[in-house]
Amino acid sequence: MRCAEGIEVRDLDECYINIDPIQVGGRLTVDAMKAVIAYGDGYSVCDHCRKPFRLDHIKTPPIDRFHRELAAFIGMEEARVVPGARRGFSAVTGTYVGKGDPVLLTTLSHYTEVLAVESVGGVIREIPAELGHNITADAAAMTIESVLREFGRAPSLLMIDHIDYQYGNVHDVQGVARVAHQYDIPVLYNGAYSVGILPVDGRDLGVDFVVGSGHKSMAAPAPSGVLATSKERSTELFRTTTAKTDLSLRTFGIKEVMLLGCTLMGVTLIGMMASFPAVRERVGHWDEEIANGRRVVEALQRIEGTKVVSELPRKHTLTRIDTSGSFDRVAKTHKKRGFFLSSALKELGIAGTIPGATKVWKFNTYGMTSRQAEYTANAFLAIAEENKIPVSS
Amino acid sequence: MRCAEGIEVRDLDECYINIDPIQVGGRLTVDAMKAVIAYGDGYSVCDHCRKPFRLDHIKTPPIDRFHRELAAFIGMEEARVVPGARRGFSAVTGTYVGKGDPVLLTTLSHYTEVLAVESVGGVIREIPAELGHNITADAAAMTIESVLREFGRAPSLLMIDHIDYQYGNVHDVQGVARVAHQYDIPVLYNGAYSVGILPVDGRDLGVDFVVGSGHKSMAAPAPSGVLATSKERSTELFRTTTAKTDLSLRTFGIKEVMLLGCTLMGVTLIGMMASFPAVRERVGHWDEEIANGRRVVEALQRIEGTKVVSELPRKHTLTRIDTSGSFDRVAKTHKKRGFFLSSALKELGIAGTIPGATKVWKFNTYGMTSRQAEYTANAFLAIAEENKIPVSS
Repeated sequence: MRCAEGIEVRDLDECYINIDPIQVGGRLTVDAMKAVIAYGDGYSVCDHCRKPFRLDHIKTPPIDRFHRELAAFIGMEEARVVPGARRGFSAVTGTYVGKGDPVLLTTLSHYTEVLAVESVGGVIREIPAELGHNITADAAAMTIESVLREFGRAPSLLMIDHIDYQYGNVHDVQGVARVAHQYDIPVLYNGAYSVGILPVDGRDLGVDFVVGSGHKSMAAPAPSGVLATSKERSTELFRTTTAKTDLSLRTFGIKEVMLLGCTLMGVTLIGMMASFPAVRERVGHWDEEIANGRRVVEALQRIEGTKVVSELPRKHTLTRIDTSGSFDRVAKTHKKRGFFLSSALKELGIAGTIPGATKVWKFNTYGMTSRQAEYTANAFLAIAEENKIPVSS
Repeated sequence: MRCAEGIEVRDLDECYINIDPIQVGGRLTVDAMKAVIAYGDGYSVCDHCRKPFRLDHIKTPPIDRFHRELAAFIGMEEARVVPGARRGFSAVTGTYVGKGDPVLLTTLSHYTEVLAVESVGGVIREIPAELGHNITADAAAMTIESVLREFGRAPSLLMIDHIDYQYGNVHDVQGVARVAHQYDIPVLYNGAYSVGILPVDGRDLGVDFVVGSGHKSMAAPAPSGVLATSKERSTELFRTTTAKTDLSLRTFGIKEVMLLGCTLMGVTLIGMMASFPAVRERVGHWDEEIANGRRVVEALQRIEGTKVVSELPRKHTLTRIDTSGSFDRVAKTHKKRGFFLSSALKELGIAGTIPGATKVWKFNTYGMTSRQAEYTANAFLAIAEENKIPVSS
């Protein structure tokens, strides 16, 4: 069935248990869906935009209040919405990173952080992950020292992913931030896999900037996200325009330079807002999510030859798995080759894996009910047994 | 009626004739509405993202084809979708403008162009509008010469709005671009009020970059837009990452630096795509839109003391009007003061004017039927007569 010319209706999340690594935290709530329908049109949230003409000052719908609540939710002073986490990174690198400036990322940093640094001509140095794929304060300290020797100055910025996209491991943000601050290095916290699905308190973590993704973890349409900071840094990051044009002598009020004025003027923002009460509530159930994730991981561990590459026990629902010694062996002789796995899963009502992937791959159990987790765990076991892979009890 | 906690259902475009200057071209088509419902979830267009893992290469839904058709639609070689026109400006300034570089805007340039220059430290010089608020090739030439004298070098970039936001006047892009190219200055065409509502051919105009706004003029959700360029410029503007991280030695494929990788991964893009067949068709009816606009303008001209500040005859549906000598006189003694006008319009089913504005204000008739245009024209006349303002026949 098509919803428009050439566009098939999307019903993946209606018809399947979705375990796609990036999609599960961004599915809309029912309220968001309703709001999206009501606010689909372009500049739909601007009906009541009055002086000083800035998105976060609009009172109807209550965008101003949402901004305050959003900042409080993640333990920061000032928050703005942005078109995706990457635009948050970019606003920060655009403010703090000059051409040739060293910037610390980690060996597990997301590619969008790399691009945000590259776009302003910064030089990337990585903090190495320790054995077990964890970023530690010690490794951060050593890398800062090494940058000092190489560049004769401290990095302009340090960016750290609380949960990395590769392993879904939890990293010591607090420890890393403490070390960075000893060198006066501002710290950006990438919460793409945390803000909106687990409790995050930027003040407690001691970071200068918190970035979250609406479409990845806040049950919001794409592109959306949040960029928040402290009172002190907000005057730098959210600086208002000082431009005065030379002939018309125009000035532009309190528009913020690095945000390029208003950011999400319609459906994306209203989706974030409508989901927010549910999002604020759901972070309190993170332990249940972890339990569901572990249930699936434990089933996979029972399949002979399967290795969990992520840290154990699992502390996040995103998990990297190596099935070279199990499902990939089957793929070698199966008539569907590597496609047998995604195909078998799909037949059992489970979607979101990359077709053909049977070696190292990822899945995310976020948002499942415990029954769905049990069903998914059993599905993996059934596929193993059907293909004669030994399963331990 | 609320669609979510604290959020009233928006029914402005269902219940009123909307003449808001910025909203009328961004109302969704029925197909876009259906697609938005099907693709509301976060990363909804990424189900079938495969190597080389970039938004504009996705085949299902047909995002790759859409990109090609979009480029052809505006007469350029390469097109990308961006989160709003401003992000298109910013990708261009980020590529071509260094700190201290002079950039030509005009005295009628939109504020987002100013911010895009300010964000990279460029220095703005304005091309003055001639009497009647028009930007001419002669004025561009003189300003370029003046920049050469002041900076000892040509501007790094020239940005021109085909239709300006203040008067809705049509400017001589072709002439200005020809002059700019004599000095090897790349030209950015701001089509926020043109791409998607009237025919635009970047090749014919002789510009290097075409930027359009999805939520302003392409019947798409916010934030969305298009950034297109020539084959030659595309290797600069859409350059792919060359970053290789120092420890993990990661590279990042063909992700484009100035776009920060993928841009519109869900509802915004699908909205643009679903509306596109209708958008492509509707630009062919621009003459009817102009006729509707003129009908309303002519009625306003009949109201004594009312001045049309935009150029005449009107060539665009966005018009600036000065009612200081008509409606504002009424406001001085009316019990609702300046609010009487928006209030009277609303009672007649017309929305989108700023409450309280009776001096200089703007409206946009885009998207009306001819019956609605006639109704709107008569509504203004009726309000004038009701308030004893003489109306000529």
